[in-house]
Amino acid sequence: MSLTRRSFLNRVAHLGGYSAAFSTMNALGLLGNAEASALPPLSSTLGQGKSVVVLGAGIAGLVSAYELRKAGYTVSILEARNRPGGRNWSVGKGTDVVFTDGTKQSCTWEDGHYLNAGPARLPSIHKTILGYCSELGVPLEVEVNVSRSALLQSDKLNSGKPVEQRQAVYDTRGYIAELLTKSINKRALDEELSGEDSKLLLDFLAGYGDLDKKAKYHGTTRAGFVTPRGAGADQSKLHDTIPLHDLLVANFSKAEFYEDQIDWQATMFQPVGGMDRIPYAFAESLKGLIQYDCPVSEIRKTASGVRIAYKSGNESREVKADFCICTLPISVLQGIPNDFSPAMQKAFHGMPMAALYKMAWEAPRFWEKEHNIYGGISFLDQPVDLVWYPSDKMFSKTGVILSGFNAIGDEKGHLTALGKIPTMQGRLESSRNSVNLLHPGCGQHLTKPIYIEWTKVPYSIGCYANNHLDESQAAYSQLIQPEGALMLAGDYVSRIVGWQEGAALSAHKAVAHIVSMTKS
Amino acid sequence: MSLTRRSFLNRVAHLGGYSAAFSTMNALGLLGNAEASALPPLSSTLGQGKSVVVLGAGIAGLVSAYELRKAGYTVSILEARNRPGGRNWSVGKGTDVVFTDGTKQSCTWEDGHYLNAGPARLPSIHKTILGYCSELGVPLEVEVNVSRSALLQSDKLNSGKPVEQRQAVYDTRGYIAELLTKSINKRALDEELSGEDSKLLLDFLAGYGDLDKKAKYHGTTRAGFVTPRGAGADQSKLHDTIPLHDLLVANFSKAEFYEDQIDWQATMFQPVGGMDRIPYAFAESLKGLIQYDCPVSEIRKTASGVRIAYKSGNESREVKADFCICTLPISVLQGIPNDFSPAMQKAFHGMPMAALYKMAWEAPRFWEKEHNIYGGISFLDQPVDLVWYPSDKMFSKTGVILSGFNAIGDEKGHLTALGKIPTMQGRLESSRNSVNLLHPGCGQHLTKPIYIEWTKVPYSIGCYANNHLDESQAAYSQLIQPEGALMLAGDYVSRIVGWQEGAALSAHKAVAHIVSMTKS
Repeated sequence: MSLTRRSFLNRVAHLGGYSAAFSTMNALGLLGNAEASALPPLSSTLGQGKSVVVLGAGIAGLVSAYELRKAGYTVSILEARNRPGGRNWSVGKGTDVVFTDGTKQSCTWEDGHYLNAGPARLPSIHKTILGYCSELGVPLEVEVNVSRSALLQSDKLNSGKPVEQRQAVYDTRGYIAELLTKSINKRALDEELSGEDSKLLLDFLAGYGDLDKKAKYHGTTRAGFVTPRGAGADQSKLHDTIPLHDLLVANFSKAEFYEDQIDWQATMFQPVGGMDRIPYAFAESLKGLIQYDCPVSEIRKTASGVRIAYKSGNESREVKADFCICTLPISVLQGIPNDFSPAMQKAFHGMPMAALYKMAWEAPRFWEKEHNIYGGISFLDQPVDLVWYPSDKMFSKTGVILSGFNAIGDEKGHLTALGKIPTMQGRLESSRNSVNLLHPGCGQHLTKPIYIEWTKVPYSIGCYANNHLDESQAAYSQLIQPEGALMLAGDYVSRIVGWQEGAALSAHKAVAHIVSMTKS
Repeated sequence: MSLTRRSFLNRVAHLGGYSAAFSTMNALGLLGNAEASALPPLSSTLGQGKSVVVLGAGIAGLVSAYELRKAGYTVSILEARNRPGGRNWSVGKGTDVVFTDGTKQSCTWEDGHYLNAGPARLPSIHKTILGYCSELGVPLEVEVNVSRSALLQSDKLNSGKPVEQRQAVYDTRGYIAELLTKSINKRALDEELSGEDSKLLLDFLAGYGDLDKKAKYHGTTRAGFVTPRGAGADQSKLHDTIPLHDLLVANFSKAEFYEDQIDWQATMFQPVGGMDRIPYAFAESLKGLIQYDCPVSEIRKTASGVRIAYKSGNESREVKADFCICTLPISVLQGIPNDFSPAMQKAFHGMPMAALYKMAWEAPRFWEKEHNIYGGISFLDQPVDLVWYPSDKMFSKTGVILSGFNAIGDEKGHLTALGKIPTMQGRLESSRNSVNLLHPGCGQHLTKPIYIEWTKVPYSIGCYANNHLDESQAAYSQLIQPEGALMLAGDYVSRIVGWQEGAALSAHKAVAHIVSMTKS
């Protein structure tokens, strides 16, 4: 497998991780009814007289505080930024984007336009975070992750001109069905398939590939039309099929397998108005408990609990509590004096941080009227390899189009093609070029770019910890262990890293630990 | 291929029809930019002094009248029913459903709940009808046609218990990838594939099937979890793989290929509040031009145009005009005295009418909270073989679930399994049973059923004309010919039959014909 493809597949297939212990599995069961949450039912007086300080008002911190307060604990949250949400951050009109190197961008988009700089999708299988949306009354709408009218571009195919996703998907399937049919008919699979199964599979493949009566693939209506169908006598013309060789050389596997990953499968949602509607709803519920602009400067254990030092403006302050849930990223924890064990200190360095970025523009919605693309993602063989169309406010005049969402460096720290472009301006030009390759002449309509590079965002310093790598497992096993009154929460101590669901479930686990310590 | 499967594939793949003339196709082109509409740009005075009577206020009639009025023609519409839309009919609170045999149902659902008894989806490639939604200000929302959490049930698999769609889709793909890999490695395809292509294809298949390093399929996260991923140490368990033999015997091809048909591919839309928001928006624009409760009783040519006789209550009336666009279904035209040519009279009998039905219930949304199913369709191996979940008002308390949408008779008039159940009550019980098989214990929550059988709906007498059958082509070629001042419009004289897009494009063609006659 090519390195790029393997690296991509590793990244996406294992983003959530899974047990390979197939042998211990239940028999073919129903519907994953088992719950992932560690949170037991809690009485509202359980935590009376006990205090918890939560470090960080991202999803893990907010969920922790929300559940602890329900259970009667006295809760406070220290947040370094001037807003809740952490990486759940919707950039819009009036947002200042300031990087650690001092670069500043100010967003002047139309009211209501936004870029979800961090998480942008809510899978319907993420029951915990969806449950909070429901509980907090956050209105959701469908996020369209796949459009068959979205485009694929490779310099190695069709002279570099894009093709519709439906062409690549259904032409590929046609060839696969034809080739497997031939193999069966040549008796190459007699050892693997019974006569009955061969017959049934041939039958299935005829439909799977939309093969003709001789089991050949010649194109399909599924792959779409050059001249559409109309009224009266038929004038329609199908797309020419793309030769198999060209499809293979173009290597659209990233595009073809994107929608198949468990967390990116239909149906997906997004909050109406931006992903940050979730943390703001939590913050509204927790009003008065969150102290903003208060970066943590020390994390200490005491005889009876914890002591946290923090800054508020130029002032140094501290807070004591019986317990502390720390949701700061390991990249930040590395620089904060703390009383975690030496094994934990080491683990803070044991998982590389993903170096993801996003770039977005305000533009007239040319992709809708001119190209029938409503939501979904186009992919390119370019430094900026992905163009993501908005699912909000479809059919309106303008919108925010995302051109660029990937990594500037791989897990070993090597720069990607985008990462090798040295300046922000150069990367934005690359972003514009990708749109223009897909939508010729439309690159010029892109205005007011916003560039987010997570490694340069203060208090994040990276997008998420790559906890799914083999070399991360030792650190992971350490980080998930509470140390007395002190414990971590965050997506990186869950098996759904990079997703709010993981953050919420890690918070449940931390709360459950505090509850068990309260009871004992 | 099995008869059921072939019949399904014929129905869906050719519902829109297409030219098989691949040799005349353009080279691999971009994006189907060519327009399907026959409508030329028209001045607003072109039709001054000319009159057109339009028969039927369905989509074809409404579009015809709307465009003709824009071009300055004097337009009137005769409509037999007391509402616009024809088959575009949203049944909701207060709707009386009365069949030709006198059966009456009254809908008492909550305000805002509806069943789209006819068309229920707007594909994003249907630019004409989407354009009218935009022009008329009809708000649209995403219609979720596919949910990977939706279910598949077969008596031949898993003891009749349902499995998640993602299991069937990705297990099947895994086996296909593994088998094709084996064939290539056995050199069975050396004639078909170059060495380079073999290597690239093996690489692709490893990702396509999510195969292990030995190119075996052992299950995949894509197929989902029995025990979901959580925080801390991994407890998750994948579904067991479904054996290939079981998948083949269960024959889920209908479910697997549904989303692949060109008109059912993502992205799809629906008007907020019901599909009938489209005809009502047209009707609002055409206020005063539509006469309701006026069934046509005679269609006559005159020396200078047409004369149409119709009923209004007990009164017989007539209207004369220079032109007539007739959008009545052929099943209705068969019984109306008319001056169409003998060839046309014959053609009215030349295409069988599709005998489709829909059944829907009001219920608490158990499919959402308990099963993570938000929109999409589950399929069963039962007389009622499809359960379709609502895309509107997700996350609310109750909704309308459709259990049953298929045909009661095939194209030869043979009854389907559902059709063989003699009574409406029996069919509704079958509908409830299907829901209960997918969602055990939930059948009892279904209330206030509505049953629509299109062959029994007055002024429709069938769902659509099967114009895609080989035996329909002679009639089709006749029906698309205007006869002087008299011409037909409707989805059945288009290559997108059963869709509003076809109706709208047929209207454009009729208007273009009138324009050409006006100019000459």
